[in-house]
Amino acid sequence: MSGAARPKMRAAVMRNKALVVDEVPVPEPGPGEVLAKTLACGICGSDLHALKHAERFAAAYRRADGTSILDLTRDIVMGHEFCAEIVAYGPHTDRRLAVGTRVCSLPVLLRPDGRQTIGYSNEHPGGYAEYMRLTESLLLPVPDGVSTEHAALTEPMAVGIHAVNKARLAPDEGALVLGCGPVGLAVIAALRLASVRPIVAADFSPRRRALAQAMGADVVVDPGVEVPIERWREAAGSRQVVIFECVGVPGLIGQAMAAAPRGTRIVIVGVCMEPDTIQPMTGISKELSLQFVLAYEPDEFTAALRHIAAGTIAAAELVTGRVGIDGVAQAFQDLASPERHAKIMVEPGRAG
Amino acid sequence: MSGAARPKMRAAVMRNKALVVDEVPVPEPGPGEVLAKTLACGICGSDLHALKHAERFAAAYRRADGTSILDLTRDIVMGHEFCAEIVAYGPHTDRRLAVGTRVCSLPVLLRPDGRQTIGYSNEHPGGYAEYMRLTESLLLPVPDGVSTEHAALTEPMAVGIHAVNKARLAPDEGALVLGCGPVGLAVIAALRLASVRPIVAADFSPRRRALAQAMGADVVVDPGVEVPIERWREAAGSRQVVIFECVGVPGLIGQAMAAAPRGTRIVIVGVCMEPDTIQPMTGISKELSLQFVLAYEPDEFTAALRHIAAGTIAAAELVTGRVGIDGVAQAFQDLASPERHAKIMVEPGRAG
Repeated sequence: MSGAARPKMRAAVMRNKALVVDEVPVPEPGPGEVLAKTLACGICGSDLHALKHAERFAAAYRRADGTSILDLTRDIVMGHEFCAEIVAYGPHTDRRLAVGTRVCSLPVLLRPDGRQTIGYSNEHPGGYAEYMRLTESLLLPVPDGVSTEHAALTEPMAVGIHAVNKARLAPDEGALVLGCGPVGLAVIAALRLASVRPIVAADFSPRRRALAQAMGADVVVDPGVEVPIERWREAAGSRQVVIFECVGVPGLIGQAMAAAPRGTRIVIVGVCMEPDTIQPMTGISKELSLQFVLAYEPDEFTAALRHIAAGTIAAAELVTGRVGIDGVAQAFQDLASPERHAKIMVEPGRAG
Repeated sequence: MSGAARPKMRAAVMRNKALVVDEVPVPEPGPGEVLAKTLACGICGSDLHALKHAERFAAAYRRADGTSILDLTRDIVMGHEFCAEIVAYGPHTDRRLAVGTRVCSLPVLLRPDGRQTIGYSNEHPGGYAEYMRLTESLLLPVPDGVSTEHAALTEPMAVGIHAVNKARLAPDEGALVLGCGPVGLAVIAALRLASVRPIVAADFSPRRRALAQAMGADVVVDPGVEVPIERWREAAGSRQVVIFECVGVPGLIGQAMAAAPRGTRIVIVGVCMEPDTIQPMTGISKELSLQFVLAYEPDEFTAALRHIAAGTIAAAELVTGRVGIDGVAQAFQDLASPERHAKIMVEPGRAG
């Protein structure tokens, strides 16, 4: 099929570092791949960052994985937190799931020449468009009775599960979560699943603190009023704290280090793309450790969907807005206010 | 005894941020303490730093331990890597060791109002003077046949043992040591004791690389000629690396993070007192962890002396110079050249 003859789809496209609505080619599924219709796709903070700091994002992305190159002069359709519906099978597929089945997937394609990213890609459009191609062997069917938008939370919830797994909490350890945006909320949900107590969560936003409680935080703190680590001590007594840094802006790692008691592990989940300054002496004098974490393993992704389906993650609390493709650019702006939104779902089939 | 009547001793004194030789009062042993004659005391890199960056050192020191305040307007007698000889017992002592016994000790005093530091102190002179007071319960007798200057290496060797213990190396892990000054050499010795293989060690100085081999490094690298992590891969094949940062100047943590393969633990042993800049995205994208370490536990200190006594640490290689109290200031300057010296021993009983 030549490019000229290919069918088109509507998409919110990152083009010249801005989001525009346009028609782009519907992707064709290759061997072992399916064509899927996007039902819902959450907007991730990293997407906001990728739009706002495009050059820096592209540079960091290239450093992280030599094979992934984002060309900012070409179109990019972002969106990696999706639930989709199987529309058609490509060649060399097993076709075990019926067309029309709702699925989640890791936002990657497994290709003979290696793993490729969906969304942060010039080749593989993400969920801010009507269609995407997915790798058949990665498809997870969404159980009946689970709402599509809850299923689309699988990816961000997997981030929380992974962070908590990497933290390897001991029975005498509890958690202090700094920042209650989507990343912090996912960590809180995962801490709750792991029966970690207490979970103390800090955020300047009253809305986010309320969400933190809904997701399972035992105590919430406004850092403008109370010192989080002092509130932790009141709540936790002699238990040892593990700090989860879920903000991801410069200075936060240093703040966590300054607040941490001797011997504390700090798990860095927030994605800070700028250089950051730390005081090594603070780390040395208290023998701190910093564990940086990223993404999730396939089994953690599967576990996230299973917990959402079982209702053991309070997913319903997280979705605070829904837009169609035309509303994506405005949604990116609205997400700047922590009082208005946690997670906005893009539903390409929706008007507006 | 009034201050005026107290006997005096010779000391290399840090006064107005310079080292001067003067007479200062001989310390009196309090309850549970002994008066000891300093036989040998190694010069530590931290002492050089404390002299050169006195304000910053005092500030970092205060942050690390709220109870320890270094008053730079008053005399400080440094020196915390010592072997001494019991001269007299203070009140309320058990006196199990004969006067004249050679001893090592943690460089602290255990007092009713808490632990106090020897050396980095306005109250408790360290080993750059003829006498010191020590806590009786901390004294470790030096076995016959162990040279005094080797015994004085107990403290720096304990730093290496502690760093390697904190690293908790798995059987499939080896080590890359960045920097082969006294800290790096102690880490190499401890890695060898722990049967870690391979040990790859990097330093720009040929002299230090030779010392690294003498202490047990399997492979040494000149970072001016070869990339240390590439040399590691050649030597170690599929084994996982744990990186020990033993330089302690700004930029080194970032360099170690940039070089580290995915999932690497970086143990930060070098004491960097300045702020340092890192790229969090480098840590995130490779899920690195940073473990800061400091000092040692009492059992690690004891183990260091035991290994020196048994000859399982190649202590003889490390001592490259000996001075009396009059030579301390010059020795501080000489230690700036990595080609000339590893460890210089101050022997207060020695002329010059």
